[in-house]
Amino acid sequence: MTHPFPDATAAADTLALLRERTPLVQSLTNLVSANLLTNVLLAAGATNAVIDNPHEAGGFARVADAVLINLGTPHDEQAAAFTAAAESARAAGHPWVLDPVGVGGLPWRTDLAGGLLAHHPTAIRGNASEITALAGTAASGRGVDSASDAAESVPAARALLASTDVVSASGPVDHITGRTATGEITTVRVHGDSALLPKVTATGCSLGALSAAYLAVAPDPLTALVAAHAHFAVAAERAEPRSGGPGTFVPAFLDALAAVEPADLRAGARIDLAPTGRR
Amino acid sequence: MTHPFPDATAAADTLALLRERTPLVQSLTNLVSANLLTNVLLAAGATNAVIDNPHEAGGFARVADAVLINLGTPHDEQAAAFTAAAESARAAGHPWVLDPVGVGGLPWRTDLAGGLLAHHPTAIRGNASEITALAGTAASGRGVDSASDAAESVPAARALLASTDVVSASGPVDHITGRTATGEITTVRVHGDSALLPKVTATGCSLGALSAAYLAVAPDPLTALVAAHAHFAVAAERAEPRSGGPGTFVPAFLDALAAVEPADLRAGARIDLAPTGRR
Amino acid sequence: MTHPFPDATAAADTLALLRERTPLVQSLTNLVSANLLTNVLLAAGATNAVIDNPHEAGGFARVADAVLINLGTPHDEQAAAFTAAAESARAAGHPWVLDPVGVGGLPWRTDLAGGLLAHHPTAIRGNASEITALAGTAASGRGVDSASDAAESVPAARALLASTDVVSASGPVDHITGRTATGEITTVRVHGDSALLPKVTATGCSLGALSAAYLAVAPDPLTALVAAHAHFAVAAERAEPRSGGPGTFVPAFLDALAAVEPADLRAGARIDLAPTGRR
Repeated sequence: MTHPFPDATAAADTLALLRERTPLVQSLTNLVSANLLTNVLLAAGATNAVIDNPHEAGGFARVADAVLINLGTPHDEQAAAFTAAAESARAAGHPWVLDPVGVGGLPWRTDLAGGLLAHHPTAIRGNASEITALAGTAASGRGVDSASDAAESVPAARALLASTDVVSASGPVDHITGRTATGEITTVRVHGDSALLPKVTATGCSLGALSAAYLAVAPDPLTALVAAHAHFAVAAERAEPRSGGPGTFVPAFLDALAAVEPADLRAGARIDLAPTGRR
Repeated sequence: MTHPFPDATAAADTLALLRERTPLVQSLTNLVSANLLTNVLLAAGATNAVIDNPHEAGGFARVADAVLINLGTPHDEQAAAFTAAAESARAAGHPWVLDPVGVGGLPWRTDLAGGLLAHHPTAIRGNASEITALAGTAASGRGVDSASDAAESVPAARALLASTDVVSASGPVDHITGRTATGEITTVRVHGDSALLPKVTATGCSLGALSAAYLAVAPDPLTALVAAHAHFAVAAERAEPRSGGPGTFVPAFLDALAAVEPADLRAGARIDLAPTGRR
Repeated sequence: MTHPFPDATAAADTLALLRERTPLVQSLTNLVSANLLTNVLLAAGATNAVIDNPHEAGGFARVADAVLINLGTPHDEQAAAFTAAAESARAAGHPWVLDPVGVGGLPWRTDLAGGLLAHHPTAIRGNASEITALAGTAASGRGVDSASDAAESVPAARALLASTDVVSASGPVDHITGRTATGEITTVRVHGDSALLPKVTATGCSLGALSAAYLAVAPDPLTALVAAHAHFAVAAERAEPRSGGPGTFVPAFLDALAAVEPADLRAGARIDLAPTGRR
């Protein structure tokens, strides 16, 4: 018998909460993603403020409903702001998400990420190689964007649960590892997405921000991440046939994030337990 | 009898000047808005250069036709550049716009904004709560995006006329407070916009930049701001029916900013005096 | 008799190599262009990482297949990163592109660009006035975006061949100056583009990044730049009739960059020798 996990109904209910509460996310993010990520949050049903200077980042994290810290293009002032925001969010009991962009291959930010782990992010979202590197386990020498690689990062995700509540390795099939309502560690898969998503920059970063928004309203971190990824996947599936390529996909995807209703998630989200989740 | 104010014909005539002169705006702005804001200026009929480092910002403000200073995501170097650009624009007699993003809730930038006010911005554009906070009057505890709140910020806007020539509180109905050609203080309303504008990030920032472009060509600051807001509103109204949501709205809006001609403003701009303007 | 130069067939063959190898570009670029530039690379068939802090820029340039250094909106940390990345790319034998945005009118970055020239960029891409200024020749007092001006910058481009392998002055007709396979200095023209390109910001910056991607796969620098510019021009020509203005042009252009195949370049690229190339 498998233990219970957040399913399409749970995702739908959490989207309803998002639309009702319009949470405010504070994003500390990179210069490639800042615009798209904000539009994703607005379309989905949240709001965003990019407050990433060390004078204000800590104070604002006490006000924001959730915080995203994305290591995409850090400079020294932002690095100082990361620590201030993480400390402050943690102290205030607000959820925060770590998106460890590029961790593993780049030593400076790998150290930064290690330091941030000490402030216990509520969630970590990355691709398989980043999750693996962050866990300090051996990086595979292969590509990191295939479904099998996301599955292969699950042991690393489980190891990271010492430092966080939930870990997502996103890819063609997203693998989300955390604790169910009954306390069991499990890995939930969210299927869907579009083949065009990897052809558009900052979609992964935007999913990290959307995860922060859902953490502000969901009953628990695992449900939050599953709902965020299901919302993203259902919108991407809806946008793809309305697109003529990676360029027209972006506006269609934003339209779809706004148009998707709880009933669409209930009917269309494809969520199951990963084989690794049953080990 | 009401005093004269810039009407749809004045807005149309000013758009004709913009298209004839293609003013160069220097923008010091945030990482969320830099791309959209530049595309808005290019589509509308101006050009833009983001020069926001302290080595060059002051010198370039002597060359640019107008300057935008937007407090969205400042870091220390940009903060130094703000002051240099404001001083330099003022000394050269070039108009400059202050967009006090986030002022009120965030103390560091509120101090920055206070310091910049000493260099007498030609115009200030913000939402109602930012205008109210900048004026140092009591912030309302309510939301800041409703039409009534924009109207409520008019006393703050009038108080700010000690430090600037014209103040816009933009929202579903924009409220623009300044002096008419005959010297009377008045508040002009620009109606229109689209319900999708608040679902797209950086549209307010872009309106601040467009205001700077219009200041470079208009006969007076009040006419400049009214024309900029009318151009924006007419384009937004035209784009909305061509959009399927907030994503497809953006390209449609940029197309519309480029397509709108003086005759469209003359026929379609909805401009009147605010009730507060008649007190 | 004219000497041989990279023609439409060479451009097509190089696009096939790009699609086969998916080179990784490291971009150090401005806040206006970072998102579009990355999407251009992904759509065209490459990948991009913006690594622009001084802690990591040099190390990553030893890993990336090519590097773009764009002087659009530099701050002090980025300026330090520029030098580290240029040195490192040069030492590793990886191609790098210098995009001297704003050089000439702005003294600080003009000095920066001069210092970077000492690290022998593989290619320089700019508009005519930037190329002229970088060569230290007298800047013309006229506009810089007309076809005649691009032609007028050819003497400056030839002078720059002491410091680089190939120089592009892009505009309505791109002029690319470098050495043919037989060692002769020549100027190749790429015709096409769309009248909408100058109405969209960061398209020139994106062409610099695409040039870097092509340098990583092409048989020689002149062929790389000709192929990159031909890919860009054919995609722009295809996108224009699918656009309703500068806003809808962007997604249509990204779709077209992805859709263009080698056969389309072979049939549609319009490449010839410049009259100045025959002097």
